[in-house]
Amino acid sequence: MQTIEWKRNKIRIIDQTRLPAELVYVDLNSLKSVWWAIKKLKVRGAPAIGIAAALGVYLGMRNCPAKNFNKFYSRLDSVIGYLKKARPTAVNLSWAVERLREQALAHCNKDTDLLKRCLLEEALEILQEDKDVCRKMARLGSKLIKSGDNILTHCNAGALATADYGTALGVIYEAKKQGKKIKAYADETRPILQGARLTAWELMQQGVDVTLICDNMAADLMKEAKIDKILVGADRIAANGDTANKIGTYNLAVLAYFHHIPFYVVAPASSFDLTLKSGADIPIEQRDGREVRQVHGRLLAPKKVKVYNPAFDVTPQRLISAIITEKGIFRKPYRTSLKKLLK
Amino acid sequence: MQTIEWKRNKIRIIDQTRLPAELVYVDLNSLKSVWWAIKKLKVRGAPAIGIAAALGVYLGMRNCPAKNFNKFYSRLDSVIGYLKKARPTAVNLSWAVERLREQALAHCNKDTDLLKRCLLEEALEILQEDKDVCRKMARLGSKLIKSGDNILTHCNAGALATADYGTALGVIYEAKKQGKKIKAYADETRPILQGARLTAWELMQQGVDVTLICDNMAADLMKEAKIDKILVGADRIAANGDTANKIGTYNLAVLAYFHHIPFYVVAPASSFDLTLKSGADIPIEQRDGREVRQVHGRLLAPKKVKVYNPAFDVTPQRLISAIITEKGIFRKPYRTSLKKLLK
Repeated sequence: MQTIEWKRNKIRIIDQTRLPAELVYVDLNSLKSVWWAIKKLKVRGAPAIGIAAALGVYLGMRNCPAKNFNKFYSRLDSVIGYLKKARPTAVNLSWAVERLREQALAHCNKDTDLLKRCLLEEALEILQEDKDVCRKMARLGSKLIKSGDNILTHCNAGALATADYGTALGVIYEAKKQGKKIKAYADETRPILQGARLTAWELMQQGVDVTLICDNMAADLMKEAKIDKILVGADRIAANGDTANKIGTYNLAVLAYFHHIPFYVVAPASSFDLTLKSGADIPIEQRDGREVRQVHGRLLAPKKVKVYNPAFDVTPQRLISAIITEKGIFRKPYRTSLKKLLK
Repeated sequence: MQTIEWKRNKIRIIDQTRLPAELVYVDLNSLKSVWWAIKKLKVRGAPAIGIAAALGVYLGMRNCPAKNFNKFYSRLDSVIGYLKKARPTAVNLSWAVERLREQALAHCNKDTDLLKRCLLEEALEILQEDKDVCRKMARLGSKLIKSGDNILTHCNAGALATADYGTALGVIYEAKKQGKKIKAYADETRPILQGARLTAWELMQQGVDVTLICDNMAADLMKEAKIDKILVGADRIAANGDTANKIGTYNLAVLAYFHHIPFYVVAPASSFDLTLKSGADIPIEQRDGREVRQVHGRLLAPKKVKVYNPAFDVTPQRLISAIITEKGIFRKPYRTSLKKLLK
């Protein structure tokens, strides 16, 4: 199972909207198809979105007829701007496409065919780095996990969100590989149900003992002392540690705080946006109300009912016990620890 | 719109599993059909279940051929036992059918035809009382509501849960009638989606400004200071004030506590079970995992994934700002206040 790969000059992704009913691979061959795949959540998860977007830049540039750098760069700039609009919250998308821009600028004196090759190489480098980063985070994070732990997770921060075995779920896989006994609980994660559709499926595939719950059952589980740790991913982390992640993450963080349960964020350095002072500056994507009113196209609620549907929420840093990255485990005060570690 | 009524010697209910797609009335003509209607949530909401069960006792007895009290009572006892098993958590069911037992015992010297009439009269009395009780709770509760309040509610504690206009939602209706401006937010309330299907529909029917959210969005709304008060119903309240209500209620109570938002329970005296010292003694119904895995028969998750699906959770009394009943507004310490007020 490979969530995203570069194969025969195309991006091959698992169409995550079809899971768990069917495991379907889709080839993306054009800039536009990448944009839609990101927008429609065929590919999702901050790291995977970053990789898809980077390869998308190459797809958008490979047939560019420009022979001089200025024309080439002008097209590149518009391709990058276009892709950034697909989803605003996850900073990895922006981070990845900006890396390609830098690559182009660094080689502005090369001919455009070579520039195109540079772009592809950089995108594939991002993909390869993500694999290494997943393993590093998992090894570091697994030190925090004890045998017998019951771990609750939200949304999908696993293999389906990355090029390797995930951020939060990577920690579980690594702990399991070390022989630790883990019992996982997956929030179903309304409205898109990434927990029910993706995390439950992925954990079962990997032989992890997983129990699915509705999002509103997490509090009860915590009260019944059935949760030892909470592990989640991140879409963007501000300089003070405030973390944007899938809607419902903040809910869990408050519950964890109330029940004295450690709450860990697992995310690569590419998820940090140190230009933002705090979570208040993170743009939050508002999505179509039909995602809440309907499931699989079937109406659950009155057709015309007003809906509030933010795709993400922001967890204030004070509720986060630690942030696990490939560069180390960060603890409070994040404003100073992040500065040192991300240099 | 009448959620439950006695019409032409049958119970007429709205089949709530069909809402909001269609408003369908169903006649219940037998004990068994009442049991299934309760079990399958065609009729739901603690007060409405109580009324249905009381009338169900009459349906179970009206063709009883027994001519002497002992035989009559033996049948009555088994009918009552049978109905109690339909749903274990809401105490109103038990409270209502026990009222019919007491009625029978009080008239044990009467002939059985007269006894049957007594049972029907008592059941209809329970129905009538519920209407009065709804109005009284709403009037009392509305005093706590200010114009401009944004009120979040969970599950359905409205007209569809009672014989009149509800418990928690009754307070909103009454406040609105008094000219107060109210903005309501409805949790969709997974897994059965009573909030999306019933509360959103009911509030829209009544012209209340309502916004639907997924359960995991409530925390974000509270952080954004968009919620002033939380109003919920109850299925059973122990002597110390601990309250069992729809799964997810405890989640809201923790969030309310964290965000300093008043959290009110609105429930009739029939929802109290003073024989129970605390919420730990309240039996919690565990329901079929398919309710979580599927929506409208369509699989959302791996078919064989383990599921935790408690129908209710227990909110500890310390998180409850006040309990609004027809007999007054109770405040902490509940152990003493409840004793006085429920005499």
